[in-house]
Amino acid sequence: MDKIILTGDRPTGRLHVGHYVGSLRRRVELQNSGEYKKTFIMIADAQALTDNIENPEKVRQNIIEVALDYMSCGLDPAKATIFIQSQISELCELTFYYMDLVTVARLQRNPTVKSEIQMRNFEASIPVGFFTYPISQASDITAFKATTVPVGGDQLPMIEQTREIVHKFNTVYAPVLVEPKALLPENEACQRLPGIDGKAKMSKSLGNCIYLSDSADDVRTKIMSMYTDPEHLLVSDPGHLEGNTVFTYLDAFCRQEHFERYLPDYADLDELKAHYTRGGLGDVKVKKFLNNVMQETLEPIRNRRKELEKDIPAVYDILKKGSDEAREVAAQTLAEVKSAMRINYFEDAELIRMQSEKYEGQ
Amino acid sequence: MDKIILTGDRPTGRLHVGHYVGSLRRRVELQNSGEYKKTFIMIADAQALTDNIENPEKVRQNIIEVALDYMSCGLDPAKATIFIQSQISELCELTFYYMDLVTVARLQRNPTVKSEIQMRNFEASIPVGFFTYPISQASDITAFKATTVPVGGDQLPMIEQTREIVHKFNTVYAPVLVEPKALLPENEACQRLPGIDGKAKMSKSLGNCIYLSDSADDVRTKIMSMYTDPEHLLVSDPGHLEGNTVFTYLDAFCRQEHFERYLPDYADLDELKAHYTRGGLGDVKVKKFLNNVMQETLEPIRNRRKELEKDIPAVYDILKKGSDEAREVAAQTLAEVKSAMRINYFEDAELIRMQSEKYEGQ
Repeated sequence: MDKIILTGDRPTGRLHVGHYVGSLRRRVELQNSGEYKKTFIMIADAQALTDNIENPEKVRQNIIEVALDYMSCGLDPAKATIFIQSQISELCELTFYYMDLVTVARLQRNPTVKSEIQMRNFEASIPVGFFTYPISQASDITAFKATTVPVGGDQLPMIEQTREIVHKFNTVYAPVLVEPKALLPENEACQRLPGIDGKAKMSKSLGNCIYLSDSADDVRTKIMSMYTDPEHLLVSDPGHLEGNTVFTYLDAFCRQEHFERYLPDYADLDELKAHYTRGGLGDVKVKKFLNNVMQETLEPIRNRRKELEKDIPAVYDILKKGSDEAREVAAQTLAEVKSAMRINYFEDAELIRMQSEKYEGQ
Repeated sequence: MDKIILTGDRPTGRLHVGHYVGSLRRRVELQNSGEYKKTFIMIADAQALTDNIENPEKVRQNIIEVALDYMSCGLDPAKATIFIQSQISELCELTFYYMDLVTVARLQRNPTVKSEIQMRNFEASIPVGFFTYPISQASDITAFKATTVPVGGDQLPMIEQTREIVHKFNTVYAPVLVEPKALLPENEACQRLPGIDGKAKMSKSLGNCIYLSDSADDVRTKIMSMYTDPEHLLVSDPGHLEGNTVFTYLDAFCRQEHFERYLPDYADLDELKAHYTRGGLGDVKVKKFLNNVMQETLEPIRNRRKELEKDIPAVYDILKKGSDEAREVAAQTLAEVKSAMRINYFEDAELIRMQSEKYEGQ
């Protein structure tokens, strides 16, 4: 079977370096690997609305930002179909029918939903659209017959829910849908890049993100202000790596060749860490190194973004073209689904013939 | 504002005399009243699937039965738009977005849903599609900008849910949707016609229904076997009206003129009831009268049905034409909804222009 990828993001803000090391970087590799027949990248605006209903403008304004970030990182509309979820009506119809295949109790047991509800302080006032979003995700995945969904470990219950829906549909009706597999990250450490303040979660409201679209100056300033080791007061003091944001970022961004270019006194990251741990290595030196490493990664992204920003209508054209392509695929799946459910009455000559005969016999 | 009606039934079986006196008879009057600019009659197959997922064939087979019953009773495709819910994809998309406007807690409080869940013995295993059907109903109603929804008193919470969704949508986005009003039955007594065995609920599995499509002989047999008053053993015994199915049916079907035609010894139903109550009037006589009354009502329905049954493809054509009409109206509403939500990005020149300008300034 041809391998097909579906992945995407909620457009609730510009993408940051956490997105880059957690998913974008890998997505570009997968796109370019030649292993996948198709790559679908979804800007999940409809899903973002499920918990942003009071601020739809935020979602609307950020679609273009996410698209710019995507293409800046190397997602290529010639190789991947980049599309906007809400423009594919077929996804809503699939969701509608899949809702009959899942019980309320099953949704309530979904650990991802549970923890996200907690994170958003929804408690009793969970919007139904948010509560049911695992079903909506199943539509997104199955509409494109995705075989492969790159996700973090915390998202495994979502894939499991999709697999259950596929299994149930294929059992009740006909084997139309494809059971997807999760593709887990190779480096789980990159999955949860902390904010520059060392807090576990990067968030716009905490002001602790480095965005892919940040200027070189902003990136430098943010790196120089990064949380390190509060016990590392003098250069000569032994430093700690645990919870030290600068080293966490180095783990995510630094490659062997960076030492030759920017810090030839050290062979590799292990040597640098060893020096830091035994004392005698100052934070500023490490931060300057991290800045060099990150600027090297971010500069081409930033430059591509600057180019893309010059022609915003062209980016919308790309999204429109991607959405048209995606719609065509989803419409084909939906037609198969409705045919399997046998609710395509007007195309069902057999049904009309049988019912005519039934009455002729009376 | 033009008045528009939306109403319909789940196609899970042939319609019976309970449907007739409870809703169909009135619908035909409303259709013919000239008061309503449009009348939409929906065969709610998608809603029926929410609790028939293991038996979709039942739903599929009964669409034509319901359509035949509708037209036999006088619903006229020249005056009313008769359509099949699942053929209007736009309803799913409206449902999808309305789900963001309702909380899980709000759905759980809905008394109609509560009692229907109990009735179906769902308990913990409620399908999500069933749990959320008040939202789906809101889509059905608002898609056609219905002002008027004929319902029994027990369905008022459903209309209230729709009104809340309309209010919320119009507040968050723009005043696009119309708040519907319930049209309550004039004669609440007709709302719950019991089965011929006197049980409160007519149901196929209990075998206690008189169907609109039953033959004259079957109707007579069923009436003659009706539950009356178990204490009315001898003709001379005083009879009781309370819980006496024959008299309940007479309340629903019998008109003044029937006495002149079939039972001229009595001026009206009050006189008949008085005689029965004081004793001296046998059940058989009353049942024969009821049979005459009901045959008079049912015969033309039955005859029209026989005619319609001769050309089943023509009935499907009518449903297709109705569905096409309905889709056009729903698509217009959906376009307004998406425009109000401002998720029609590709048609939104203003959005693209503003975002272009934002980047030009940098």
